[in-house]
Amino acid sequence: MFTVEASCLNARAGRITIGKKEIKTPAFMPVGTQGCVKALDAVDISEILKPDIILANTYHLYLRPNPETIERFGGLRAFTGCDSLFLTDSGGFQAFSLPGAKVMDEGIEFQSHIDGSTHFFTPEIVINIQHKLKSDIVMVLDDLVALPADPKRVNLSVERTLHWAEQSLVFHRTHRTDESQKIFAIVQGGTDEQLRAKSANGLNALEYENRGFDGFAIGGLSVGESSALMYETIEAVTPLLPREKPRYLMGVGTPENLIEAIDRGVDMFDCVMPSRNARNGTLFTSSGKYNIKRPIYALDNEPIDASCGCYTCRRYSKGYLSHLFRTGELTYYRLATLHNLHYYLSLMREARAAILSGRWSEFKGEFYAKRGKE
Amino acid sequence: MFTVEASCLNARAGRITIGKKEIKTPAFMPVGTQGCVKALDAVDISEILKPDIILANTYHLYLRPNPETIERFGGLRAFTGCDSLFLTDSGGFQAFSLPGAKVMDEGIEFQSHIDGSTHFFTPEIVINIQHKLKSDIVMVLDDLVALPADPKRVNLSVERTLHWAEQSLVFHRTHRTDESQKIFAIVQGGTDEQLRAKSANGLNALEYENRGFDGFAIGGLSVGESSALMYETIEAVTPLLPREKPRYLMGVGTPENLIEAIDRGVDMFDCVMPSRNARNGTLFTSSGKYNIKRPIYALDNEPIDASCGCYTCRRYSKGYLSHLFRTGELTYYRLATLHNLHYYLSLMREARAAILSGRWSEFKGEFYAKRGKE
Repeated sequence: MFTVEASCLNARAGRITIGKKEIKTPAFMPVGTQGCVKALDAVDISEILKPDIILANTYHLYLRPNPETIERFGGLRAFTGCDSLFLTDSGGFQAFSLPGAKVMDEGIEFQSHIDGSTHFFTPEIVINIQHKLKSDIVMVLDDLVALPADPKRVNLSVERTLHWAEQSLVFHRTHRTDESQKIFAIVQGGTDEQLRAKSANGLNALEYENRGFDGFAIGGLSVGESSALMYETIEAVTPLLPREKPRYLMGVGTPENLIEAIDRGVDMFDCVMPSRNARNGTLFTSSGKYNIKRPIYALDNEPIDASCGCYTCRRYSKGYLSHLFRTGELTYYRLATLHNLHYYLSLMREARAAILSGRWSEFKGEFYAKRGKE
Repeated sequence: MFTVEASCLNARAGRITIGKKEIKTPAFMPVGTQGCVKALDAVDISEILKPDIILANTYHLYLRPNPETIERFGGLRAFTGCDSLFLTDSGGFQAFSLPGAKVMDEGIEFQSHIDGSTHFFTPEIVINIQHKLKSDIVMVLDDLVALPADPKRVNLSVERTLHWAEQSLVFHRTHRTDESQKIFAIVQGGTDEQLRAKSANGLNALEYENRGFDGFAIGGLSVGESSALMYETIEAVTPLLPREKPRYLMGVGTPENLIEAIDRGVDMFDCVMPSRNARNGTLFTSSGKYNIKRPIYALDNEPIDASCGCYTCRRYSKGYLSHLFRTGELTYYRLATLHNLHYYLSLMREARAAILSGRWSEFKGEFYAKRGKE
């Protein structure tokens, strides 16, 4: 399923094969929470941005429209018209961030953010929903904790997540209808290296009929800790994960975070940052980010980034985008989202090319030099 | 500038030539108030919908960004990246609908809807702004009244609009920098046939250096009167307007309104209805309109209109659109707007084809038959 094609120090370039499709890593997954990358349509994804895979949220799709509706339409690809692969998260993060959610040994009780109704997610329920969605990469339910945290609570999170992972693996392998559907476990343990090791080793040891998980995610980061502590934790975890399986850092982060994580052996990412920040006016470029709100851009006839070849930069000036943003035109959100996601996806493609050609360290140096940070 | 290619009873098919571009009539102009058709970008306009001309609002662009900015970028086409022709309204309608606006013989004093600041529009100022915008069809400032209205007030509106039109014509012809820029006058007079005649005849008689207006708009309709009264008024006005000049019914309306107005000799239309209604969930089809909110559509795997070949109908089901609408995804607004504008533009193209082939009456019959109204 996963082949490491090249590595430079800890950075890896690889390919994940799922059915007839492929994910070239390092890979960034745009976030399409409700079966739609906000402000974009399936053509924007499949013909303009062309990510290998996008992420959708189990919690949101469970509430609206509901798994049975998507199943009836033929799964996420058929429902959304979007031809890419889909990874679905497990709802663990939403349970963590929803006010009033209760985590128990059996699962997570939570209230819908839409109508306040009470629901219960168990490891099996969550995998079952993802099967109905026809997700290509299914994530196990996990128990994550805000940082800093009481070590006892972190240990409980590790043990619970391990137990849930075991149930999930069995349920997945015995219930999936499509052999190509993959399942990833999630390493927890806060910023405690010992607990991270306990989690990683425990998950790695799990098997059902001689087969373990298809990949490993690092969860529970970017939840309040410093970047330095996050990097240390990643650095402690990746050596414990099997070389021949993909590693996915969940919900992270800035372009700098991605580069540092690749440098520490991570292969996959997802984050709302490029799309959400686009909507707030923040635009990413090779020389850093800026906000289109600034009055200086109102008369600027240059594109967002003169070196960018994206849909938006080939057509529109900062002046026009600034006007659309100020006047609240919906069109702005699509154009800015297209640019920011293009930036993230291009950064991953360039990182991959650098690793494949043995130029990773130089690439990393250039990345920071362009930002005036080296 | 305008050639009538064919007519069936009072319905006309023609061509307006402006520079190297052409408007084939009957024509519908999508509304791009702030230099952007809401939820769409220039590619959606130029490559997907392909209207011959779109409308932008002088009042809105005067306030934001301001005429000088757009002039500096090279006019509306260069600023927006949208290659179509642009007609700009005069701000008369906004002055009419803004609370607290004061109409005087010299012009209109109004408060900005953005910051409450006070501004004054005279006929010359309004033409000058439109010159800076490099509008292809410039509209004169007019004084319109809500219906029903006191006949004295309607008479004042007719006289004022006539006087302003004269000032506008002189200013336009002596100040325009681009010979291809056209100017249209606006007929007022409420639903009073005598006052409409006074306005139409008065405007038609105006000339500067032996040249009158390039076209005539019918303004002040769809402001509270019944459809029947609107049709009667149109029917009274069009015979008074010169056959060799285009006739533009401002701010109207439903598909039925357009068909009835074409039947009475109108050539051009603009209306926010297809784009605004799209955003509210109302979708137009050949068999009538419906709202995507209705629960019945949540499981519907058919497109909005099985007989429609638009961008949206070729790709997305009512079920997916219903999900996007319910979950507030911005993507819905673009997809629904593309469909509704495609419907309006196609209706005009079909009406034109019917007139050119001498089938107007049959076409009109079929239009109503499909809606189950005949």
